Amino acid sequence: MQPWRFLRITAGDSRETLWRIVEAERLATAEAMPSRTAEFLKLKVEGIRDAAEVLVAALMPDREPHVFGRRTLPEMDLASVACAIQNMWLLARAEGIGLGWVSFFDPEAVAKHLAMPAGARPVAILCLGPVAEFPPAPLLETQGWGKRLPREEVLFEEVWPEGAGGTPTAY
Amino acid sequence: MQPWRFLRITAGDSRETLWRIVEAERLATAEAMPSRTAEFLKLKVEGIRDAAEVLVAALMPDREPHVFGRRTLPEMDLASVACAIQNMWLLARAEGIGLGWVSFFDPEAVAKHLAMPAGARPVAILCLGPVAEFPPAPLLETQGWGKRLPREEVLFEEVWPEGAGGTPTAY
Repeated sequence: MQPWRFLRITAGDSRETLWRIVEAERLATAEAMPSRTAEFLKLKVEGIRDAAEVLVAALMPDREPHVFGRRTLPEMDLASVACAIQNMWLLARAEGIGLGWVSFFDPEAVAKHLAMPAGARPVAILCLGPVAEFPPAPLLETQGWGKRLPREEVLFEEVWPEGAGGTPTAY
Repeated sequence: MQPWRFLRITAGDSRETLWRIVEAERLATAEAMPSRTAEFLKLKVEGIRDAAEVLVAALMPDREPHVFGRRTLPEMDLASVACAIQNMWLLARAEGIGLGWVSFFDPEAVAKHLAMPAGARPVAILCLGPVAEFPPAPLLETQGWGKRLPREEVLFEEVWPEGAGGTPTAY
């Protein structure tokens, strides 16, 4: 489908604006989690000012007519770009390069900053480049925000078992 | 995040029902493309009755509280499962196994058929297994439905260029 575009951000002042948009949402997120605000603020959630490359991925406006298969599931364009980003992520990792997918931002603020046309929707700020180390497990796991679910909780046989609605973690 | 669940469908009658749901949408899609109906109907869009494994991927209900980073971009749960499916896809391909992501279906019909709780949303029917051959290029490309865009059309520098809204293909 390719119903998406990537924008490469190299100018320092543009990165600074992106960083400010992310920082505003990071603080708003922290405020929305009163029980774990301080812990949350210690997490690294972006590397916009430091990364070798910063890319913004956005869904296109007027994308519906592009390819079929979206009549009943219009969100398949997001699935498509997520697959593209995952390919990039795995390739980067195979080359010893880090990638972070930043999703803490007001999409309208990012769209306006990057002159996107009406209807385009930014869905990722990607921070890509050499990193000091790769942690042995996801940060959210080592820092107690969640853990990998056992297979029997995520893979069902034939139908959805009664009562398996999931148990959201409370903050 | 893992805000998703996979359902493994092995029972013949259940697969038959899934196939009927997909077939209904395939015909509805064909009708919605009057200029290329016949061509469309020749495309292989599913392998539900033949595949070694059929998996349905669904987003969970009550998923918002799971992990942060979804305040302004609630659709990140779909991005998450799309990354998981892409990993599965690449692994299958590396093992010489085919995977098809079927998105021609009414999500409510699939949810009901598989006893999903209210709020869960199926986003993929995955057909996985040995295949006779891997085509040298995507079918949509070889059969004239679209083609890979050149890099300069999908990667912009700094801002979205004026007028680069995309040129949807008309059917």
